[in-house]
Amino acid sequence: AWDDQLQHDHAFFEWLTPRYTACNASPFGLTAIFFARTIELMGSPEQKSKWLPLIQSGHINGAYAQTELGHGSFVRGLETTATFDPASDSFVVNSPTLTSTKFWPGALGFSATHAVLMAKLITRDKDHGVHPFIVPLRDPETGKPMEGIELGDVGPKPSYNQTDNGYARFDNVSIPRSNMLMGHATVSSDGSYQKRPDVHVKAAYGSMLRTRAKMIWICAVQLAAAVAIAVRYSTVRQQGTLPYAEADGTETAIIHYRSQNSRLLTHLSRAYAILFASRRANDIYQDFESRQATRDFSTMTETHAVLSGIKAWATTLAADGAEDARKSCGAAGYLAISGLPELVQSATALCTLEGENYVLWQQAARELVKWAPKLSSNNLPSALRYLAGKYTPGQKCTATIPTAFLLPETQLEIFKHRSRRLISKSHRLFSASVSSGDSPSQAWNNNVTLLISAARAHVEYLVLQAFIASVSSMTTSPLKTTMTNLCSLFALTTIITGEAHCTFSEDGYLSETQLDAVRAQVNALLDTLVPDAVGLTDAWDFTDAGLASAIGMRDGDVYARVMAWTRQLPVNSSDQQVVVGRGWDEFIRPALNRGGRKL
Amino acid sequence: AWDDQLQHDHAFFEWLTPRYTACNASPFGLTAIFFARTIELMGSPEQKSKWLPLIQSGHINGAYAQTELGHGSFVRGLETTATFDPASDSFVVNSPTLTSTKFWPGALGFSATHAVLMAKLITRDKDHGVHPFIVPLRDPETGKPMEGIELGDVGPKPSYNQTDNGYARFDNVSIPRSNMLMGHATVSSDGSYQKRPDVHVKAAYGSMLRTRAKMIWICAVQLAAAVAIAVRYSTVRQQGTLPYAEADGTETAIIHYRSQNSRLLTHLSRAYAILFASRRANDIYQDFESRQATRDFSTMTETHAVLSGIKAWATTLAADGAEDARKSCGAAGYLAISGLPELVQSATALCTLEGENYVLWQQAARELVKWAPKLSSNNLPSALRYLAGKYTPGQKCTATIPTAFLLPETQLEIFKHRSRRLISKSHRLFSASVSSGDSPSQAWNNNVTLLISAARAHVEYLVLQAFIASVSSMTTSPLKTTMTNLCSLFALTTIITGEAHCTFSEDGYLSETQLDAVRAQVNALLDTLVPDAVGLTDAWDFTDAGLASAIGMRDGDVYARVMAWTRQLPVNSSDQQVVVGRGWDEFIRPALNRGGRKL
Repeated sequence: AWDDQLQHDHAFFEWLTPRYTACNASPFGLTAIFFARTIELMGSPEQKSKWLPLIQSGHINGAYAQTELGHGSFVRGLETTATFDPASDSFVVNSPTLTSTKFWPGALGFSATHAVLMAKLITRDKDHGVHPFIVPLRDPETGKPMEGIELGDVGPKPSYNQTDNGYARFDNVSIPRSNMLMGHATVSSDGSYQKRPDVHVKAAYGSMLRTRAKMIWICAVQLAAAVAIAVRYSTVRQQGTLPYAEADGTETAIIHYRSQNSRLLTHLSRAYAILFASRRANDIYQDFESRQATRDFSTMTETHAVLSGIKAWATTLAADGAEDARKSCGAAGYLAISGLPELVQSATALCTLEGENYVLWQQAARELVKWAPKLSSNNLPSALRYLAGKYTPGQKCTATIPTAFLLPETQLEIFKHRSRRLISKSHRLFSASVSSGDSPSQAWNNNVTLLISAARAHVEYLVLQAFIASVSSMTTSPLKTTMTNLCSLFALTTIITGEAHCTFSEDGYLSETQLDAVRAQVNALLDTLVPDAVGLTDAWDFTDAGLASAIGMRDGDVYARVMAWTRQLPVNSSDQQVVVGRGWDEFIRPALNRGGRKL
Repeated sequence: AWDDQLQHDHAFFEWLTPRYTACNASPFGLTAIFFARTIELMGSPEQKSKWLPLIQSGHINGAYAQTELGHGSFVRGLETTATFDPASDSFVVNSPTLTSTKFWPGALGFSATHAVLMAKLITRDKDHGVHPFIVPLRDPETGKPMEGIELGDVGPKPSYNQTDNGYARFDNVSIPRSNMLMGHATVSSDGSYQKRPDVHVKAAYGSMLRTRAKMIWICAVQLAAAVAIAVRYSTVRQQGTLPYAEADGTETAIIHYRSQNSRLLTHLSRAYAILFASRRANDIYQDFESRQATRDFSTMTETHAVLSGIKAWATTLAADGAEDARKSCGAAGYLAISGLPELVQSATALCTLEGENYVLWQQAARELVKWAPKLSSNNLPSALRYLAGKYTPGQKCTATIPTAFLLPETQLEIFKHRSRRLISKSHRLFSASVSSGDSPSQAWNNNVTLLISAARAHVEYLVLQAFIASVSSMTTSPLKTTMTNLCSLFALTTIITGEAHCTFSEDGYLSETQLDAVRAQVNALLDTLVPDAVGLTDAWDFTDAGLASAIGMRDGDVYARVMAWTRQLPVNSSDQQVVVGRGWDEFIRPALNRGGRKL
């Protein structure tokens, strides 16, 4: 895909591979988005004009080496050092401890020629903290590591085995002074260190924000892909009959079981919700980027908080939903050739990489605690503006007729009440804990579960708002009706299913009668949407080659393809039968005969 | 392990391998528990005395071939045929369609010599339904398939790749008449079919019940193993500091984050809950088995229902908990050498095999609907007896002081109210739906979500009861105090976390104030239990060799072992470097040079 991009000058596969995995599943997948991007953001003008053309033309393939064996989310803890040596006008790079081994960076293991290395800058015996350096890793002719560098692969993983997440150790590796990216800080030939005055201290985070916005989109696609396979299989697969059904010998397609279609359609509505959320996240990021161009960093904190929250939320739902879709295919979903195990594990990886979800949830929550006492101010960040105004505890939902729950206004009001209540409550308990003598960090730790549910409630309001806005901007058509139903399904299943749904009703805002009405509406929506399930998954336009699923092709010819693919697996080839025969001779027959001694 | 069992005459690894996976992870793992067991249950006395010694001595290795490509849970749908031919006094076995291919049976692919084959018995042109037949699969000398039999492996799976889940097709394969297991029904040489009069129609289910009882135990061990690895890693791994903590340069061991220890200790309490539930399940099964020996099948339905429910519940919690423990280790949990991905996928398989969980939930629910109108009768099945007596809707929990929630009586009362309410409500809505003109199967489908939550509430009551009983029978000691705390943690986290927890409060039985008190108790319990986390996982006595985890060994030397294991991976060996070098020459260098055209 990378080669194709270079030759035909497109960026179609820049973030997502043809197999619907994130771009880091390719040995060349990080060179444009991380390696080049860091140079764009952190390099001096001369450095950009030297390195960027080499990257854009594909002459060098770069990695981004930050994470270490002992250090992930906590960047300040990194231990790799780059010590300036004025005599040679160069930096000497070292891995001083075992835990400082660079571990995980994509493409490091066997395909990158260079890396941006994040290391502690030391000059004149002073540690200036972590800075970026360009380090040549390999001889571009032979591919062998440069002197003093140990490179390897971190080995098998549940997915993403196509890329080489690698490790690297440095033993007195010398690089020219000009290889430190000097857009934000400089080291002169005499070893003096200077920060550029006009640079925001966290400007480099821009690259991370962009990546998170893209990840939200990627996990929408992956969840939809898993649901597409499961919906297609469930339409073909017949199994048993409903309880109490009269036995006439015919079996029922499993899509007609409520226990099946309620799960698959709920996940499908979430895939669309995440897609619309990713568009909103992208708008938020673009706004930040255009401000950044004019050196306006005023929205960085709020952008960071909202993207962290949506990323944590979206990847959690996508990973869990993809796995549930896999399970819904029964044993067939456990076959590698179903495509589902790989897809699930690829979606699951997104919960951990580029910001572990529990860390991100807390970053999102911190912004809420900061603003909670100021919700009546008139300069709230835009994502929080819906919370403005007075909050009345003990309020009840006023919807009385069941169909009221299909109205977007009702749904938004319910989501808003929950978010407002949890933000207020978590701030109140956090403050009370501090007042009672706990340190702020203890107070945080004691209330972290509540803080995370506040962040989740806030994110789910924003997502529902984005979903409703997208649907209402559609022109009237049968499609709009279907999408409106799907949006209601998303809203109402969020109220009655999932780990967080209790927070809608635990304060009595929704009564049991109202919850029963919501459940009845969900049942009715499911009946309406089942006939559209195939259409709503086809709409994502997945290719058969991309899904690579024996049970999820467009034509529905499941069983013939499972048998054909199984028969041509290497383990069933005639070559392999020789190995199997040898196994019989070496292990099984002797074991069977040894049994004979006891007869 | 099988060979060791044979030579030293023990059954230690009959159900669980030394790596803590279910016995079907070995090519010989099913011969005793399924193959021999079916012959014991279904064979005539002569057949038993012919076959059982051959199996017990290890001369033959058997598989159990039931599941077909197109047919799983619904046994009546099986399509494989065994047609009696009086002329040769034998059965002719055929796979008449693609979907009749036997698919999934363990050991079928390359290690079994024989199978018990479930096939439709046809004699005198009449189909008598599915019966068991012993079919020789392979030449015991060469291991090659017998004439007319096609055998193969179903290929890669997320786990259990050590065993060969296989497929088999039969083309006019002839077996002697005496190979039909004739304990329950007979075919004479003239082709006449006769059922034995004194046999319960579903007597063969006994083997399935026993397997499910064992699976509950297996998933307890697997969840505990995943938590043991995660707890050990979390004790060693330091990462960042708590929000608002003063920066003094030291990082915090991640076990001290509430977002980490609340998850791990909750899962640990569930592992113990599942363990005690498995002992109860085993007692229930043993009681059934001793009745069965006297041809008393009166408790079969209730035994089936309660084991189905506990199996579905336990495997769901174990799979989700193991995956969450894996995620809690961040990127390290994504390394194959952490042992966690394999363990998670092995636990996850149990959600599907031997009864898909959504099918089992419904079987458990069906028993509840049957008894719901008769809860005042005095011959309730024993598992339902706690529900006897009048139920008052609208009741409130009477606990007023926060520590009341630590009392087993309070906890059981809360669990009982929920179970009683949901059983009553699901039966009421199901009946109302039938009264309004729906067919019973439609009524079931409309209310299936509620029915499943009733079944879950019922199972969780039984599990809590078993946990409390086990702990209270311990003699007073520090251990009893710790286990009492763990039991309370299980009860209270069930009330405030997980998909199903909303059902405790949606009717107002528990108020928000009471829920806040429960949350405060959980916080306090976690603080008390964190220092015991390592001890409570060590107590399962896992061996380092069994866990095979670079991050979860007893000695806690995580980083040195990760680097040592990574460096000796095949991909990083010097042999492999030759392959990597060839990859560079063939793919990467040409791609980098091709870029040159555009410069």
